[in-house]
Formats: sequence, C-alpha cells, structure tokens
Amino acid sequence: MMSKNEDTVAINEVVLRDGFQNEPSFVPTEEKIRLSDRLSGTGVRRIEVSSFVSPKAIPNLRDAADVFRGIERTPGVLYTALVPNVRGAERALECAVDEVNLVMSIGERHNLANMRMTCDQSLAQFREIMNVVAGSGIFINGTIATAFGCPFEGRQSVERVLWTIDTYRDLGIEGITIADTIGMANPRQVGELTATILRHHADLPLTLHLHNTRDMGLANALAAYDAGMRSFDSALGGIGGCPYAPGATGNVCTEDLVHMFHNCGIDTGVNLPALLELSGELPATLGHGVPGYIVKAGTSDRVYA
Amino acid sequence: MMSKNEDTVAINEVVLRDGFQNEPSFVPTEEKIRLSDRLSGTGVRRIEVSSFVSPKAIPNLRDAADVFRGIERTPGVLYTALVPNVRGAERALECAVDEVNLVMSIGERHNLANMRMTCDQSLAQFREIMNVVAGSGIFINGTIATAFGCPFEGRQSVERVLWTIDTYRDLGIEGITIADTIGMANPRQVGELTATILRHHADLPLTLHLHNTRDMGLANALAAYDAGMRSFDSALGGIGGCPYAPGATGNVCTEDLVHMFHNCGIDTGVNLPALLELSGELPATLGHGVPGYIVKAGTSDRVYA
Repeated sequence: MMSKNEDTVAINEVVLRDGFQNEPSFVPTEEKIRLSDRLSGTGVRRIEVSSFVSPKAIPNLRDAADVFRGIERTPGVLYTALVPNVRGAERALECAVDEVNLVMSIGERHNLANMRMTCDQSLAQFREIMNVVAGSGIFINGTIATAFGCPFEGRQSVERVLWTIDTYRDLGIEGITIADTIGMANPRQVGELTATILRHHADLPLTLHLHNTRDMGLANALAAYDAGMRSFDSALGGIGGCPYAPGATGNVCTEDLVHMFHNCGIDTGVNLPALLELSGELPATLGHGVPGYIVKAGTSDRVYA
Repeated sequence: MMSKNEDTVAINEVVLRDGFQNEPSFVPTEEKIRLSDRLSGTGVRRIEVSSFVSPKAIPNLRDAADVFRGIERTPGVLYTALVPNVRGAERALECAVDEVNLVMSIGERHNLANMRMTCDQSLAQFREIMNVVAGSGIFINGTIATAFGCPFEGRQSVERVLWTIDTYRDLGIEGITIADTIGMANPRQVGELTATILRHHADLPLTLHLHNTRDMGLANALAAYDAGMRSFDSALGGIGGCPYAPGATGNVCTEDLVHMFHNCGIDTGVNLPALLELSGELPATLGHGVPGYIVKAGTSDRVYA
C-alpha cells in the first residue's frame, strides 16, 4: 500500500505468517492473537495475519480463521492473509480480511516446490480467485516470489519481472510485492529493479519483501528507498526462513529496519520501543533466540553510565 | 592505503588484532602465524597482525613479536601493528612492521577507558612515537576511534573529527582510519562524513573501520563506497567486539563485505572462496561459532540441485 507521506515508509509486519510458518513448534492461537493486537498499536501499516493454506502444507498456520476471528481490528491497519488458491480465498472472505496476498514464484521450479503449481497454473488460479473476491472490496496484492533469484534457477531477468507485473495488473491485481524470497538480492540489483518498476508503473502500490540471508537486508532496503520504494515487509525479531534454502536466515528484522530508517532520518510512523518490547518477548514464545540485533545491542543512541 | 584502481576497494584484514584481542581463549601463536600466511594469499591489501600493547592489558596479543617474526611477508601486502605508546613503537620497529597504527578515541571518556589517557596525553604520545619512527620508512596510520559516536558521550561532531584529522596530519601521520568503534554509525552519517573528509582531504589515504553491532555494517560500507571510500577494515568471520559495549557484535565480516562488493560489481581483488575456506575453520580454532553469514548460507549464486 502507498503511504500517506511521500517520504514516509510503510512497514508491513509478516512475523505471524512468514515468521511463524516454519517454526518447529506450533505457536498457540491466543499468542498469535495477542501479538497481532499489540502489533496493531505500534504504527505498522499492514499485518499479514496468517495464510489460508492447507493445514497439511503448513500446520503452524492451521488456525488462520480462528486468529482472524480473535484479533482486534485497529482502524488504519490493514489485516492481510496469504491465499494460495480458491478455497483459501473463500475462507479469507468468510473472515473479512482487508487484503488477500497471492503468491507466485517466477522461478518455475521454486513455484513447483513451494506452490505445487506451474506458473501457468498459478496464474489460472489467480483468475479464479479474482472471480471469487470480485465486488467484495478486498484489496488484492500479488507477490512475485524469487524476483531477485531462484534457488534452483539462479537470477531472473528484469523482463520476466516486468512481464509478471503486467500480467498481474491485467488480472486486476492492485498492489505488487517483489520478494527476495531466499535472500539473493544485492543493493545495486534492488535499486535498479525498484527504479525500473517505478519508471514503468509510477502509480503502483509496490512493496519490497526482503530476507537477511546474506546480511544485505538493510543495505537492500536503503537502496530500494533511495530508488523510490516506500513499503517494506519485515518480521519482528528477523525470524522466518525458507525450507528450500538450507542455512538461510530469516526475514529482514522489523525493529532493525525501523531503527536504521529512523537513524537515517526516514520516518516510518512506528513506535520503536514498543516493537523492541514485543521482540524481547519472542524468545520466550518460540523457545529459541531470534536473529535481530537491536534487541540485543540497544539502539545506537544508547549511552552507558 | 589508497588502492591502485580508482574503483577497486582495498580490504584490510583485522581478525588477528581486533578479532582475537577479546577472545576468551588464547589463540596459539602458530595458529596466528598460519592464518596470517594464508590470508596473505587471498588478495587482502593490509593485515593488522597484532598490537604491541602491554601483555597485561591484552593477554591474547602478548605474542605480537613472535607472530611478526614467524609470518611470511608477501610482496604487495602491508603488515601492520597497532601501537599504543613509545615502548610499543620501539617493539614494532624491532619487528620491521610495514606500518604502525596509532589510536585515539575522540570520546574523552572512551579514550580514558580504552587507552588510559586523555586525548591530550594521546596526542603527546603520538608526538613521541613520531620521533621514534622518524626516518624508518614505516608508514604511519592514525585511527580516530569513536568517530561516529562514543558509548559514554554519544555522537561526536563532524568538526571534532575534522580537527583530529588536521591534528594527526600536522603530526606527520600519513593515513587516517575513521572507526565506528562500537557500531553506532548509520549509512547517511557514514556517507556524509566520508564525503566531507574527502572534500577537505582529497589526497588522504582514508580507511573505514566498521562494526556490525546494529546490522548496519554492510549498508554503512556501501554508503561510504558511494561517497568515495576505497579502503575498509574488516575481520574474518565478523568476530571481535568492544568490552565497553556489552551485547555488541563484532567487526564487519570480511567475507560478507567482499561478497556484497562483488555482488554489486565492485572489485576488491580478493579471492572469496579462499576467504570462505579460512572462515570455515575459525569455529574450530576459537571453540565457538562466528557471526558471518556467507559461510553459513553460501554465496548468492548458490544454486540447489
């Protein structure tokens, strides 16, 4: 989603979906609801609450409907769900989500591994999903996964990304997320792809989804910002990963990203101390440490007695 | 040191000094020599081999002279030692170092804690050291520690950094390193300070010493590069820290930094696979894991079968 101010960055919190989906232990439904409700007060623009995916595919998100029914909706915050197919779209509609997020990997083999569909089959699904949600008023976002590279096929061409954006928009998809699904992107590539997309689609609600796999997450985010990007996915604590990329670390960390933006004089509208409080509780919720830096080191204005 | 090509980045490996100095266990002298010799073949421009400091202050570097006597000197690589005082300078001279690195924190309280001197006392020491090394042909580098902020006093003014550079140069110091000693810097600050210094001192051999305390190390490095910086300190594996900044992670990681530069099309002259091999052996040498990312995730062109 576009942010209200040209220079303000919108933060989209994906910890509940991308963060929790690969956790070894199930995060209790009431913990998810509690976290969503507290995140709603931090100033994040959008919360990806869950995924209406098969419980067999992702058991950790089997409670998607219960979470959506349990959370409070704060005005001004968009509550999103990832939707992989028509059945998922129907479930999302029943839960009155604000937005559905459709996902296709432009790496064919990654799409097969991740979505169990060819790209053609994914696009056919999208067409059916558009029919299901038509007239509901729900915002449709489309994610282009592996936009910066596929773990099986390597780099993807800029032309393929642009073709996918055109195809998504022709289908009626309103917003686009370009995703560095397994953390292959570098700052030059991110800056150039962002600038290219915005040159072709100045009016497009464009979001960037980054992983910190190779420690370039924050550098990539800043390069994107400098090229005009104003909306970023990130996960509290920097948790999350990809089952097809062993050794890969998680999503870019929300509080580290917000901290960098604020240090650089870039407004996010987010309350950093509130985020840090939530991040500090994650290890107890998950039973393990999290990759985020600021929650351990403190903010850069920390002064010792 | 300036690099040969305008666009090529010089990598200064500080793992043996800044990396090892705070390690809980002593790294055996023969391991240090072996690592220096293998690093000499990787394409790094400068190796900070040790510090001629009091063995009581930093027991892990008590073998500085033995390490210097044991290492092979590869032509084209500069072998540097940190030197805190006149006695250290004399020992460095006996070991025929290529360069001595003098250090003062511009945060008075950090200088007192770290060097046990006021800034005036440090500068007086520098004058005496210059007399000791005069005529030896040894290159004199001066580090401005806490240039981006002090853990006790907070941010330092640009004027204070510029005053310190002028003072160093008046003393005869030939190269300058600006150090983000405890990882407080952000990319905007780094870009602006680098540009300001190079505007005043276009001919100055300028180096940037970064820590990844708040995960901004690589973003800071790229911002500095874009502002004209062409020489970077970094430590294999990203080890090292500061005893006065609890929770702080280590130096910016050499192989992660080189990986980012290469991904961005920026030449370093460094053999990344050779670095990764050395980094992969660090956990066995140190008895614990290291913070580096690439050694775990693989390079971004890694493709899965």
